[in-house]
Amino acid sequence: MKLHIHAALDYDLPEPTDLLLQMEAAHLPEQSVSNARLDLSPCEHFARVVAHDGIGERIFIRAAGQFTADYHATVDIRRTIADVSRLRKMPPHQLPGETVQYLLDSHYCPATQFRSFVEEEFGELQGGARIAAMRDFIQERFHYLPGSSDASTTALETFVRRQGVCRDFAHMLVTLARASTIPARFASVYAIGVDPPDFHAVAEIFLGGAWHLIDATGMAKEGKMAKIGVGRDAADVAFLTSFGAVTMNGQSVEVTQV
Amino acid sequence: MKLHIHAALDYDLPEPTDLLLQMEAAHLPEQSVSNARLDLSPCEHFARVVAHDGIGERIFIRAAGQFTADYHATVDIRRTIADVSRLRKMPPHQLPGETVQYLLDSHYCPATQFRSFVEEEFGELQGGARIAAMRDFIQERFHYLPGSSDASTTALETFVRRQGVCRDFAHMLVTLARASTIPARFASVYAIGVDPPDFHAVAEIFLGGAWHLIDATGMAKEGKMAKIGVGRDAADVAFLTSFGAVTMNGQSVEVTQV
Amino acid sequence: MKLHIHAALDYDLPEPTDLLLQMEAAHLPEQSVSNARLDLSPCEHFARVVAHDGIGERIFIRAAGQFTADYHATVDIRRTIADVSRLRKMPPHQLPGETVQYLLDSHYCPATQFRSFVEEEFGELQGGARIAAMRDFIQERFHYLPGSSDASTTALETFVRRQGVCRDFAHMLVTLARASTIPARFASVYAIGVDPPDFHAVAEIFLGGAWHLIDATGMAKEGKMAKIGVGRDAADVAFLTSFGAVTMNGQSVEVTQV
Amino acid sequence: MKLHIHAALDYDLPEPTDLLLQMEAAHLPEQSVSNARLDLSPCEHFARVVAHDGIGERIFIRAAGQFTADYHATVDIRRTIADVSRLRKMPPHQLPGETVQYLLDSHYCPATQFRSFVEEEFGELQGGARIAAMRDFIQERFHYLPGSSDASTTALETFVRRQGVCRDFAHMLVTLARASTIPARFASVYAIGVDPPDFHAVAEIFLGGAWHLIDATGMAKEGKMAKIGVGRDAADVAFLTSFGAVTMNGQSVEVTQV
Repeated sequence: MKLHIHAALDYDLPEPTDLLLQMEAAHLPEQSVSNARLDLSPCEHFARVVAHDGIGERIFIRAAGQFTADYHATVDIRRTIADVSRLRKMPPHQLPGETVQYLLDSHYCPATQFRSFVEEEFGELQGGARIAAMRDFIQERFHYLPGSSDASTTALETFVRRQGVCRDFAHMLVTLARASTIPARFASVYAIGVDPPDFHAVAEIFLGGAWHLIDATGMAKEGKMAKIGVGRDAADVAFLTSFGAVTMNGQSVEVTQV
Repeated sequence: MKLHIHAALDYDLPEPTDLLLQMEAAHLPEQSVSNARLDLSPCEHFARVVAHDGIGERIFIRAAGQFTADYHATVDIRRTIADVSRLRKMPPHQLPGETVQYLLDSHYCPATQFRSFVEEEFGELQGGARIAAMRDFIQERFHYLPGSSDASTTALETFVRRQGVCRDFAHMLVTLARASTIPARFASVYAIGVDPPDFHAVAEIFLGGAWHLIDATGMAKEGKMAKIGVGRDAADVAFLTSFGAVTMNGQSVEVTQV
Repeated sequence: MKLHIHAALDYDLPEPTDLLLQMEAAHLPEQSVSNARLDLSPCEHFARVVAHDGIGERIFIRAAGQFTADYHATVDIRRTIADVSRLRKMPPHQLPGETVQYLLDSHYCPATQFRSFVEEEFGELQGGARIAAMRDFIQERFHYLPGSSDASTTALETFVRRQGVCRDFAHMLVTLARASTIPARFASVYAIGVDPPDFHAVAEIFLGGAWHLIDATGMAKEGKMAKIGVGRDAADVAFLTSFGAVTMNGQSVEVTQV
Repeated sequence: MKLHIHAALDYDLPEPTDLLLQMEAAHLPEQSVSNARLDLSPCEHFARVVAHDGIGERIFIRAAGQFTADYHATVDIRRTIADVSRLRKMPPHQLPGETVQYLLDSHYCPATQFRSFVEEEFGELQGGARIAAMRDFIQERFHYLPGSSDASTTALETFVRRQGVCRDFAHMLVTLARASTIPARFASVYAIGVDPPDFHAVAEIFLGGAWHLIDATGMAKEGKMAKIGVGRDAADVAFLTSFGAVTMNGQSVEVTQV
């Protein structure tokens, strides 16, 4: 399955500012990127650094005035799709060391506070069956409502408000998984089916010895998304982090099946 | 300079529980650990995993009932001590990729919110001189007061309350450094001079191409502390993380200069 | 029904400090207080002021060193008990002006965030039937667990954690009621049935033109509690507010049916 | 001094919704309102209730579809202006009972956390001199920056961010005053000098036995503002509170000196 991606950013920097850009599909065994092209407006500096967990790259840029980024790529997705509900939870002491950070609380995912709820609500289910039930719980009880949350909204608030956008849905599933001592991380992706079209975010859960993408909004399918990057939560995989004032003029994302 | 360390934990686990233990001094070029011995009460499982940034190890344990850990070690410290105030800030685009996570907000260190304050208060200083001024600001204006904070206290609250314990002081300096686009992480250490004796926490700042330990409480000296582990904030380097209910019977830390 | 109340406080004030004390049963038509006696350790100042909504009194005290308060009283309760589930919600525009503050968010009761949840979960019920369902929801799904919350815990956190003490249960019901545009306030009471014996807190809901006490913990009965004071949430009716440092030596509450 | 006021609201209510409107200048001894006229679009219900502390009125409305409110009035201000810096703090035990609520923490004004800062920074000043110093501190160190805060911003965050709009400046001063055990409330006003023109908010401080308006932004003068209402913080005196979904089409405020 091939995706064609086109994403464009147009921002304004009143003063020379350092930016961290992460908008390119990652080169990974299960997704092969071709015809990629990133056009940037003139920058004072440009440096690539490897991103979180070695998945994808971040670009350090220093620029001023109008900043534009235009990205095109074709991504061939050959991801193996598992039936999540049948996957086994690994006991914590058998987990690989690099997954441990994904068991701990992070800013948007205060999992410890959800332990009692998770035990009461999903206590009879284990491993993948529990994760599938959590995904269904979120999909049924929460409303996808653009504008109903902002950059400061945590899973605590989302759980109460029962509404949010993709990042809130992803934070919610990540949080419930970690509250069950199942490693879970946040993945930034390009995906078919996102309406309105935008950068998308999903959860990635460690079950049966591997990571599995799960979209708690139900909009996108695991086999039709291209990973940009991963992290503990949205704070780690912003497509644009600015170390100074910045205003958006516009941005657009188009993902089409080739 | 040699430290002798003795730390003991005594906890109670009402049910079989997974624990993550990180209380051993890390093996590092600048600190050589000898005569180390960790005695644990009987455990169902025991597995070592590498810790954050490859510094130190975490141990996964599954246990029930009384859980005790008794750790002895001698650590020979040969850390090069720099005059922080003369060190140079690296421009973001020259930073190594692995330091980028330490520029971003984390749960206890919401650095972005402090940018305006930092610019106003320390705007005329750069690099190490700015960090030294921040350390002095914290040391002079904040009170070290055991019991004045708890596990949920963030640098936002510490900044307002002007009091806290070592972890709050470390979070405060880490936060102000990141608000200046200088990478900063949280280090858990054993140190001479901590009163009352306990696990200690300090900031570690990336200046002039290397990490430098700084204790904003002023109690401990960089050359007289042994690193246990590092992370984005206290959430990443707890000496004991429990994935279930736990109560403390007692704990003690002794660090002596040999 | 008569209650005999005995409550004793023993605190330490390292420096001369202003205190606000509210521990006496209020004189109200439905509860008649007799044989009341409040013995205080020597105070520099002492002044009574009327408390929130004219219910009960607060006492301003200035004291230093050991501060003790010993209160005895007999309260004759003749409260009319309604079947809450049959009471009618008043439309907002017919509410008395003094109830309006009890529709708004307060610190511990961020009701607005719960509107979507309340609509989804209790949308088919109205007025008293809805309040009764909310009380049952809290009683069934939340665990009364001393030590599981602290003075900073809001209804947002209680909703996630599913555990707390009486003040958390009261905050939870107050919050869900307000989210349904039903006035709700927080009442501090002495009650039979509280285990372990302590100051108790319940919700008070405005239905059918009158206020009705409801204990979401299920421990105390409306007819067996004596009101001390009311407020928007716990911040308004602390039995002791100190405008300076204070440490507790001990405190005790005994309520017996005469 | 006479002010002419014109304020207009234009909102959209997708469903029949209860609204609480508080946009009329209050009738008070020190401000006499004449030629007042409030034109509303058709409403299902309309009921006036007295507002917080008996200052001004709130109007309960039930409406659907487009909701508009157009208010004209002339207000003659004859407020006695005191030199705040010379006013005396009343000791807490001499405060009138109705001011006690304004000593306590409220949602946007978590004063208790600021006690240590206030003592350290303003400890040598008392009463009005301390309030004047706090006003100057805020005016000098904080930036008035429209868009830099939102409806969830508390004084804790404002203190860290050093920027905000009028409500944040008012919350900041109210919080610092309460942290000094000086009663302080939040006042919603129409004022000359507000740029861009809008509803304005200031602090009102109880000193020398009376309430005194103080604008920590420095934009408006005590003698050139008409009070709409007061409360513990912004939550109590919103010009429009909606108990359901609402979207703004537009709103405007004009205040001119006659």
